[in-house]
Amino acid sequence: MLIDGKDYRSIWLDEHNNRIVKVINQQKLPFFFEIKELRSVDDVFHAIKDMTLRGAPLIGAAGAFGMYFAALSAGSGTDPREYLENAARYLISSRPTAVNLSLSVSSVLKKLLREPDTGLLAVTALSEAVNICSLEIERCRRIGEYGLEVIEAVSRRKMGSTVNILTHCNAGWLACIDIGTATAPIYLAGEKGIPLHVWVDETRPLNQGARLTAWELGNQGISYTIVPDNTGGHLMQHGMVDIVIVGSDRTTRTGDVANKTGTYLKALAAYDNNIPFYVALPETSFDFSISDGLTEIEIEKRSPEEITHVSGYSEGDIRDVRICPFDAAAANWGFDVTPARLVTGLITDKGICRATESDIMRLFADKSI
Amino acid sequence: MLIDGKDYRSIWLDEHNNRIVKVINQQKLPFFFEIKELRSVDDVFHAIKDMTLRGAPLIGAAGAFGMYFAALSAGSGTDPREYLENAARYLISSRPTAVNLSLSVSSVLKKLLREPDTGLLAVTALSEAVNICSLEIERCRRIGEYGLEVIEAVSRRKMGSTVNILTHCNAGWLACIDIGTATAPIYLAGEKGIPLHVWVDETRPLNQGARLTAWELGNQGISYTIVPDNTGGHLMQHGMVDIVIVGSDRTTRTGDVANKTGTYLKALAAYDNNIPFYVALPETSFDFSISDGLTEIEIEKRSPEEITHVSGYSEGDIRDVRICPFDAAAANWGFDVTPARLVTGLITDKGICRATESDIMRLFADKSI
Repeated sequence: MLIDGKDYRSIWLDEHNNRIVKVINQQKLPFFFEIKELRSVDDVFHAIKDMTLRGAPLIGAAGAFGMYFAALSAGSGTDPREYLENAARYLISSRPTAVNLSLSVSSVLKKLLREPDTGLLAVTALSEAVNICSLEIERCRRIGEYGLEVIEAVSRRKMGSTVNILTHCNAGWLACIDIGTATAPIYLAGEKGIPLHVWVDETRPLNQGARLTAWELGNQGISYTIVPDNTGGHLMQHGMVDIVIVGSDRTTRTGDVANKTGTYLKALAAYDNNIPFYVALPETSFDFSISDGLTEIEIEKRSPEEITHVSGYSEGDIRDVRICPFDAAAANWGFDVTPARLVTGLITDKGICRATESDIMRLFADKSI
Repeated sequence: MLIDGKDYRSIWLDEHNNRIVKVINQQKLPFFFEIKELRSVDDVFHAIKDMTLRGAPLIGAAGAFGMYFAALSAGSGTDPREYLENAARYLISSRPTAVNLSLSVSSVLKKLLREPDTGLLAVTALSEAVNICSLEIERCRRIGEYGLEVIEAVSRRKMGSTVNILTHCNAGWLACIDIGTATAPIYLAGEKGIPLHVWVDETRPLNQGARLTAWELGNQGISYTIVPDNTGGHLMQHGMVDIVIVGSDRTTRTGDVANKTGTYLKALAAYDNNIPFYVALPETSFDFSISDGLTEIEIEKRSPEEITHVSGYSEGDIRDVRICPFDAAAANWGFDVTPARLVTGLITDKGICRATESDIMRLFADKSI
């Protein structure tokens, strides 16, 4: 997607040195555009942990590149098998809530454990990582095409007047490799010239909406307005939202959706005001092995510092300011679960379905367990 | 209430100079404890407008003192009547959503317009302002006593284990003159030794929860944890909230509650999880003249700067940091309306009632129109 008119992805192999993976440092956006180099398993772990990289599909891809770094070193160690398995566990532990990460890391690991020639481990891992990226982009493109139909239907119903979409957090191309999940239908609708406006939840504590989604939309020329996470209910009560589209970090086979904390509150408000609430997600964000989102999805608890301090731009630099008493306690659950009953539909790369086990498993019949 | 162990109110007449009203500058809390002097109608207007003062009962009291300043100057002008009426209109315009302000300003104005001796205007206004403060404190105390019974009932049901209360924004003593509305039952329960813990919504954009409620509770020795506004739903889904208590800026005769933006989302989550949702408010926060909160309550739109920037403490000073792209659009509705159907009960100074017109009008029979 575009940054100052130039095309980028959120993660790529350096064209001059194939032992370097490059990523956009999302901590510094939208104030500074910084490309960061990753050169080791540890670099990948910390880039995920400290939110340099975030977004379920992107950290899935990053995890795969992490396994490529592991494969590069595995040959020189004592037991490559044990080394690779340890690296996989370590990488997965950087973000327990997102399913894509464990899926992609496990997929690379599986290929590596089947590779008899240790001299080929690196090339096996790299081709799998590149493959995961290509597939993920293709999935986003399909999500965009299916989701476009939903936006077009709203636009027709409104006889061409502006379609107001609310989104939470960043399920944009920065969270993926390109195009995005929740943003994919928006970008495609924008390209088609459908009049659009996006309400961007700022998404405390890390403000991925205000920082990243706003920046993405601005760069693509899509009209948007940032609102506090508190405002969505008021907007919906007053007819200012036509449709909600969010992403997902993990969705159960029954349609319960884990996503950035606060998503559940927006789903409640959409339901209360009879506004369609869609979740856009690739096949890789489903966890077909579980059926109760509230009890079976581990919700990552993050540092209280993300609550007690806010990071932003001041006088040429990024600074933290403290927003509460010096001795205050704070708690930081990173995600919440929206029960399937509040979800109008899932926009997937295989098509759109209701958030029910029967509909989901019809679409993903090969995943039946 | 206590600040570092010393007793304070949020507004008082200076003991040495009766032309000065003193207030705590709430913009600087919790980082700096600054007492600000108000000496004119203009000072009062700006103190309300810029959030030096906030909270429905407090700005009601401040408005009354504003009319005292008007009365001090009215004698010297040409037409005292016109002067006072203009001052009243001006003061009311500083915060249109809160009903207390227009109520108290109008009440002082009425007394002044009936006063034949212009030499007595100031003393009439002052006695009325002092009277309004005393009555408001008495109302908060009664709200505390009625609300205590609700908390005691929860505590009994939990067989004495910690009662977890969630609150939004600051409906504490800083928002009132003393004790607070939503906090009054909490402080009384704390005094009685009931084990309590309060989840404090940070309350973007101005973080009154993280800044003020946290500071108040800490000073009174009540255990609390700050959470982002996004987190309440997750807490309620997982049994971590026993009761929600919030304040109100304006409540209709039918029980629709205007309060700080985001309150509606918490009411939806409480309803969805079968958790009691109470609104604590004095008689003066009712607007008995209206019955449809969603269409009849004017929702103040505030500066987008409150969204695009966050204010906090850094290196010995209070600074603003920008949290979004430099050219970002943002929108800032200060309040929302929680429909009566989501409200379990209203804790008023006249007793507790359901949020229905019949119950409210039974409690406030003298207000029938």
